[in-house]
Amino acid sequence: MSKKIPHRFYLTEEQMPKQWYNLRADMKEKPDPLLNPGTLKPCKAEDLYPVFCKELTHQELDNDTRYFDIPEEIQEFYKIYRPSPLIRAYNLEKALDTPAKIYYKFEGNNTSGSHKLNSAVAQAYYAKEQGLTSLTTETGAGQWGTALAQACSYFNIPLTVYMVKCSYEQKPFRKSVIQTFDGDIIPSPSLTTNVGRKILGDNPDTGGSLGCAISEAVEKAVSTEGCRYVLGSVLNQVVLHQSIIGLESKQAMELLDEYPDIVIGCAGGGSNLGGLIAPFMQDKLLGKASPRFIAVEPASCPSLTRGRYAYDFCDTGKVTPLAKMYTLGSDFMPSANHAGGLRYHGMSPILSKLYHDGFMEAVSVEQTKVFEAAVFFAKQESILPAPESSHAIKGAIDEALKCKESGEAKTILFGLTGTGYFDMTAYNSYHEGTMTDYIPSDEDLQKGFDRLPVV
Amino acid sequence: MSKKIPHRFYLTEEQMPKQWYNLRADMKEKPDPLLNPGTLKPCKAEDLYPVFCKELTHQELDNDTRYFDIPEEIQEFYKIYRPSPLIRAYNLEKALDTPAKIYYKFEGNNTSGSHKLNSAVAQAYYAKEQGLTSLTTETGAGQWGTALAQACSYFNIPLTVYMVKCSYEQKPFRKSVIQTFDGDIIPSPSLTTNVGRKILGDNPDTGGSLGCAISEAVEKAVSTEGCRYVLGSVLNQVVLHQSIIGLESKQAMELLDEYPDIVIGCAGGGSNLGGLIAPFMQDKLLGKASPRFIAVEPASCPSLTRGRYAYDFCDTGKVTPLAKMYTLGSDFMPSANHAGGLRYHGMSPILSKLYHDGFMEAVSVEQTKVFEAAVFFAKQESILPAPESSHAIKGAIDEALKCKESGEAKTILFGLTGTGYFDMTAYNSYHEGTMTDYIPSDEDLQKGFDRLPVV
Repeated sequence: MSKKIPHRFYLTEEQMPKQWYNLRADMKEKPDPLLNPGTLKPCKAEDLYPVFCKELTHQELDNDTRYFDIPEEIQEFYKIYRPSPLIRAYNLEKALDTPAKIYYKFEGNNTSGSHKLNSAVAQAYYAKEQGLTSLTTETGAGQWGTALAQACSYFNIPLTVYMVKCSYEQKPFRKSVIQTFDGDIIPSPSLTTNVGRKILGDNPDTGGSLGCAISEAVEKAVSTEGCRYVLGSVLNQVVLHQSIIGLESKQAMELLDEYPDIVIGCAGGGSNLGGLIAPFMQDKLLGKASPRFIAVEPASCPSLTRGRYAYDFCDTGKVTPLAKMYTLGSDFMPSANHAGGLRYHGMSPILSKLYHDGFMEAVSVEQTKVFEAAVFFAKQESILPAPESSHAIKGAIDEALKCKESGEAKTILFGLTGTGYFDMTAYNSYHEGTMTDYIPSDEDLQKGFDRLPVV
Repeated sequence: MSKKIPHRFYLTEEQMPKQWYNLRADMKEKPDPLLNPGTLKPCKAEDLYPVFCKELTHQELDNDTRYFDIPEEIQEFYKIYRPSPLIRAYNLEKALDTPAKIYYKFEGNNTSGSHKLNSAVAQAYYAKEQGLTSLTTETGAGQWGTALAQACSYFNIPLTVYMVKCSYEQKPFRKSVIQTFDGDIIPSPSLTTNVGRKILGDNPDTGGSLGCAISEAVEKAVSTEGCRYVLGSVLNQVVLHQSIIGLESKQAMELLDEYPDIVIGCAGGGSNLGGLIAPFMQDKLLGKASPRFIAVEPASCPSLTRGRYAYDFCDTGKVTPLAKMYTLGSDFMPSANHAGGLRYHGMSPILSKLYHDGFMEAVSVEQTKVFEAAVFFAKQESILPAPESSHAIKGAIDEALKCKESGEAKTILFGLTGTGYFDMTAYNSYHEGTMTDYIPSDEDLQKGFDRLPVV
């Protein structure tokens, strides 16, 4: 007889992971190294010290250490809002009339509203440990900025957030949450950096972009004494910190005598997906199990499904190192009608490599379909999902419906990264029927590929 | 040696309460009965059937049954979002440098963002069971409307929400969440009822009030076949359903070998406070323990601390039964600068009686002080509290600071009823320094008392 599975399952505090897992250690084929944009040679630690704090630089470059101890102070912060629940979606299963068993790991039950806090805490801590006196970052939809402001407030480090100008204007409430945690916010592009002044000179009315905000935050960090830059996704260090999602999920499933046949996550920069799949991918890499992994990305920003696997800059201003990744070109911007996050031009080098080598699948979905799934899910599960997270919901529903067709009782695990409280404008436009879909043309994408750096 | 207390403690699904506790059963002096507004005689069940569904009417009038079984279907819904965590506020304690041990029961981790869902589920279920075909309610700040829309969507009952017009206009996002759960929203006052038409005729530009929205929702319910009215606070039945908060809290504390010296809650209509204190008050009523109970209310709507204990209508339109309660008069409205909920003119008859008989204390606090406490709390505990809930935070901080003075290591339990994601306009005005306090004058209050019904 199988175990009685509760709706919500929480690990105890003692059961929470005490180490992060570094997926790269078990990859036979490692991701290609970051390149110094000046020399086009692989980045050394010294190349990155001016940008990132030391410990994070080491985590970024370390392809071999399998487990990193989570420092005591970070564990203490994690205990404030973790463990996150592993939820059995009984109601969703019933509504879909599927034999599939659907689980989701819900990361939205903290004030930042998303999984981003998992890495924000780590990055703020290491900065404090190194004696740094301030940090900069960028934020688009605002989840990352909120998370980092929370973390910096906790560790008492001043933070400057470059917030994409159109988000700054459209999301005054996000701004207010960041201010509650003492974050200093500057709409980007701004007059506080050379990059910003140049972009504003060329295009005074621009609403800004994530790539541009990154450039400004990096410039500010490297030109300010005791200041460093922190990033909420894409980087290896962020995927490392987010492994806590997967580690908790795997341990919880083990305690419930379960193991996923399919693991599904939304894919923007890749950190939540990378973190969720990490320990399950380890099993696959080591030949212990063979779950499927599915990245779900927006049709309007399809880096995995339609991008090129190539070296590219991580930002619009081309001040960052180059990463080998699936990319749409560093100046790619999804249409303005695209809601929420998942608007980054590239993809985590780790995930890019795994996808390239056939360990992971990817699908893209249109946003009206995503919101349809989100509203359906909300009614069954009584959680209002973020647009980003709803891509994973859509992916999970599609797989569960395939199970209905085939009669297979597969076990599906997906990551529900956050809540949609600050995305109600998009929900409004969905309810009012004014939401539209955007799919870039091959010609549009080709323009981006033509501008990729020659390495 | 004392037990190691985790930051967040969750009961297991099996440990969740299977019965609600009816505090009235253990009160030697019962609350005075509701009066029929026509006859001024105590309400019989038949008087209430046209307004409330049958089972809820029985719960409303039953002063004797100690425990009510929670129906299986309601338990199933509770499992979707409960148990809620009992949190040890280690960081807050540290920041206050207090010897007090502070616990809070956090009810904000569901999409409605508050404890209101606990009663919404029950009321929607009983309506469905009775074969009713629609429900009406009112909402002010929007938490109750959201909660009830979620519950009605789950049980497939159409819902009409009369939303106080100024909230309807100022909180488009709340509206959108309610729409996500298929709730039909009408700004109140409206042309859909006699009460609404009369009020609009007298005052076409009014922003509405909670009392007026109640009148409209009641009128709509009693004049529509198969329709009933549901209310999110004040009523005995709601306090009964909310006892799940206190029952879970007490059981969790018992498992941690703890018992509160002081129990603190914010007080609007009284349902969350009544639910939180219920099982601890039982101990006090039965002489088993003697914790202190503190109701914290806004200085701008001070029903307990400055109101009259008298029979009054529950609504502005004077269509509801009369309740014996602490009241500011049924046409009392807090100043427009008052943020969030806790704007009701009266107080739960159960709590009113307990307060009147000396079993409970009450304090009132000004809203700038409340937001100061809210922001301080957010930084320590990484939860963004609702303005309503922050009254309890302020009360808990004040008691913890008294412990610091006296050196006493008291155990404090408070109720954190919800999150503030939809209250960022108020946070904005606090950050910008434009938030002001309002305290009604004795003369203003006297006007309300002069209009109290003569019973």
